[in-house]
This record gives sequence, structure tokens and C-alpha cells, in this order.
Amino acid sequence: MKTTDEVIDFVLYGGQRHLPHLTIDCAILGYHDQQLKILLVKLHGSDGWGLPGGFIRKDERFGDAANRILAERTGITDLFLQQFYTFGDSPYRHREQRAEDLQQLVGDWITIREDNWLLGRQISIGYYALVDYERVIVQTDLIVEDYGWWDIAALPELLYDHNDMVDKALETIRLQLYHQPIGASLLPDQFTLPEIHVLYETLLGKTLDRRNFPRKLFALGLLNKLDEQRSIGPHRSPNLYEFNRTNYQKALEEGIVLVM
Amino acid sequence: MKTTDEVIDFVLYGGQRHLPHLTIDCAILGYHDQQLKILLVKLHGSDGWGLPGGFIRKDERFGDAANRILAERTGITDLFLQQFYTFGDSPYRHREQRAEDLQQLVGDWITIREDNWLLGRQISIGYYALVDYERVIVQTDLIVEDYGWWDIAALPELLYDHNDMVDKALETIRLQLYHQPIGASLLPDQFTLPEIHVLYETLLGKTLDRRNFPRKLFALGLLNKLDEQRSIGPHRSPNLYEFNRTNYQKALEEGIVLVM
Repeated sequence: MKTTDEVIDFVLYGGQRHLPHLTIDCAILGYHDQQLKILLVKLHGSDGWGLPGGFIRKDERFGDAANRILAERTGITDLFLQQFYTFGDSPYRHREQRAEDLQQLVGDWITIREDNWLLGRQISIGYYALVDYERVIVQTDLIVEDYGWWDIAALPELLYDHNDMVDKALETIRLQLYHQPIGASLLPDQFTLPEIHVLYETLLGKTLDRRNFPRKLFALGLLNKLDEQRSIGPHRSPNLYEFNRTNYQKALEEGIVLVM
Repeated sequence: MKTTDEVIDFVLYGGQRHLPHLTIDCAILGYHDQQLKILLVKLHGSDGWGLPGGFIRKDERFGDAANRILAERTGITDLFLQQFYTFGDSPYRHREQRAEDLQQLVGDWITIREDNWLLGRQISIGYYALVDYERVIVQTDLIVEDYGWWDIAALPELLYDHNDMVDKALETIRLQLYHQPIGASLLPDQFTLPEIHVLYETLLGKTLDRRNFPRKLFALGLLNKLDEQRSIGPHRSPNLYEFNRTNYQKALEEGIVLVM
């Protein structure tokens, strides 16, 4: 939770404590109830929605910075964030819009000068994470005015180049999904075959063969069949499964081809 | 080709024209005669081998910077370079070794101060390219003392964290290779099935099924069979093939699963 003094101090003098030119932006993808969503924030002073992001301290590791930034913007801690791409090929991306947004943020308190450290070239390292979004509660403060989970298939026009970032994050996740069983963090410990099937279909954005997909999971030894069923209605009690942790870990390390 | 004055000017004042803290390093992988190699350079003043790299100008696009750096270090131009990862999580990676190497480079001309811009935190954006290495001729100069193509399977201990960079580049290429027909730039226009088979085996570092692999290529419509054979000995004249450019382009854009 930031005070006004802290915000102004950061805008004026933050450049002495942070790496200039380098930011981190986080694509936090949430899966719940068969839907894939992304966490967006709206900053005070800005009309649009964007990814939660911030600057890296001079002596801070990337991974620590990504987790700190996410915690400061959203209150979310301890996510497994993975780097996916570095953006900012264009030297002064959206500089004018950033200048306007920054002046709006600080209002009448100060006048933003052209040489403010926040208006230099900005290069952003993108990180993503997959979470169960019901577990996430976001804190708003003097910087973050609002937040929301948006359907990935119906995003508005985001700030700056954040739509490109979301596209690239999805592309990376889909490519990884073919080779690593990264679904485990999105499923309960015990799940039915239709549940894992729908998860993969949702993440990949396409239909998977109803027979070949589970066959492949079994062939790779990724699932243990449990002696339990889930009762979901009269005469409907599909079997429950869990991941085989040994083979799951092996698949993570060696890579697999899970779906075609 | 750099003069002594240019080298000293860069060491002392280059920080005014370049982004501080940000470098680009290039993993240039060469394939020839069924071997996978990587281009390493040895800089004046340094005892070890490393990837060719350099700094980004303040108003320069990443892609342009990567190509300029590669051209300055090696004379190679017009490569299709792809970003693969950003390194430098650790705040002051190899700072002492970098300071020693830098003092060696400039010798008695100047004394490197602790606050020299080249000794700050360095974060490196990694780019890779795949080339036929017989086509590449490297220029040495006042900065680059020597260069060489090293067998990827028998690398020495490289400078700084460059071994990690090579590992990550290979990992990325292998993951992409499953989904994009990126082999085209490494084969002649016309090739035999054993030639493309060995290329993929070399890049992936594993054996591929002799029947399933070509079957998959045909099923995806990636190859056109030509009315020509290559004569490689008595009674040995394997058929020649070329990539079907339309399907190749489609596969690049949509992604495929090429091998399992």
C-alpha cells in the first residue's frame, strides 16, 4: 500500500535505485470453471487496462523482481513465474502516452519533466504464470485503481504493446504444453479424464481427440488411476486420477510430445 | 575494423551512446557435413572463448543491434537472428573477471576505473541463428583476436555464463524444431531423405525412426519429390526432394508436430 509521498519519491528519484530502461511485465493466466482468463490492472491516471508491471532494483535478481512487482501490484505471492520474451524492439514505444499517463497519476503534485527517468526507452522482460484464479485476491492502492480477470478470447485494446505480450505469452505456453505436463498447477490433486481433457482444450484453444488424448497420457505413464469415483449425477460417476509424480517429473525434465 | 582510438573512445565514452546494462549475445550455430558447431570468438585481453556480443545503441532496434554486433565481430551479415532468452538474473555476474579482461584489452593506454560503464550490471538478450558454416568467413581486428567453429558436443569452459547461454539456445532450437520446419536454411535446395534425416538427428541429438520420420514429412505435405537422383556410387542414386514452399510456410505459421 503506497502513500502519496512514496509515489512522488518513486516518480522523481526511483531512477537512482532501479535499472533504467528495464521493466518486468507479468502475464498471470487463470483457469477456473473451464475458462482461461488473464489478470489485468488499471492504474490511477490511465484510461486503459494493462499487465501488472514495474522496475527492477539495481541489485535485484529478475525472478525476485518479478515476484516483488506482482506482490506490490496485486498482493499475489509465491507464484512460479517463467520468463517468456523480452519486448521493446522499438526505441520509444508509446512514449507520449506514457508521459500523459504519468502526469495524470501525479496530478497537481508535480509537473513531469521530459527527462524524467520513467520516460526513457523501456525494455520489458515478460514473465507468465498459470494459477487457479479463485485463489487470488488483488489489493488496490494509490497506484492500482482497479483489477479484473478478463476472458482471454475477448480482450479489450490494452495499454502500450500489452496485447502483443499476451499473444506471445499464450504462444509460449501452448508450445510448452506440447512438451511439458504444465497442467498440474491448474488441476485439483484428483481429477477426472474429462477435466484434464477440457483443461488442455482450453489452453490450446482447439479440440483434442477424445480417445487419443487420454491414450497418450496413459502411454506416457503420466496418470495413476485411483479407486475412487466422482459422483456428478444419477449413473454418472467418472473415475478419479492423479498425476504420477515420478513420470511427471521425468517428462518435465526430458520433454514429451503430449498432443498432436 | 577498429582503430586504437575507437577502442579507447568506446571504453571511456561508449556509455553515452549505448543503453547501459544491456547487451546482446549471439549463438551462431553452423551445420555442415553432418556436424553441429557453434561460432566462438576470443577477444584481445581475454584468455577464454565466448559468444560474439556487444551493446545496444540508445535509439537502435534489438534486431538491428544484433545484426550490427554480429557484423562488427565476425563480418557476417544478413542472418535471420531469433531472440531466445534474456540472461543476467544475478546482479553482478562475473564483474571481477570482466574488469580484468577489460584492463588487459586496453593495456597501458588507460587505467579502467571502478565506475567504468562497462563494469556495471549487464543483462544480455540472447539471439540465435542457424547457418551453413562453410559460407561464413570471420574478420579479426583490434577487439577480436581469433575465432573458431567448435563442436557443440565438446565445448570448452566458456567466458562468464556463456555455457548456460549455449545450452538454452539448443533447448529452444530443439523445442522449435518439433513444431516448425526450421531446417530449410541448413539444407541445399535439393536434398535426399537421408540428408534431412541426419540433419534432424544432429540438431535434436537423438535417433529418429527411419520409417516414421519421412512418413510424417510426406503426411504434412512438406516435401516435393523431384524427377532427379543423386549419384553417390554404383547402384546408389537416392531420389532428390525439395521443400514444398506453400506447405512449409503454412507449417511455420500454424505449427506442426514433426517428430516424436
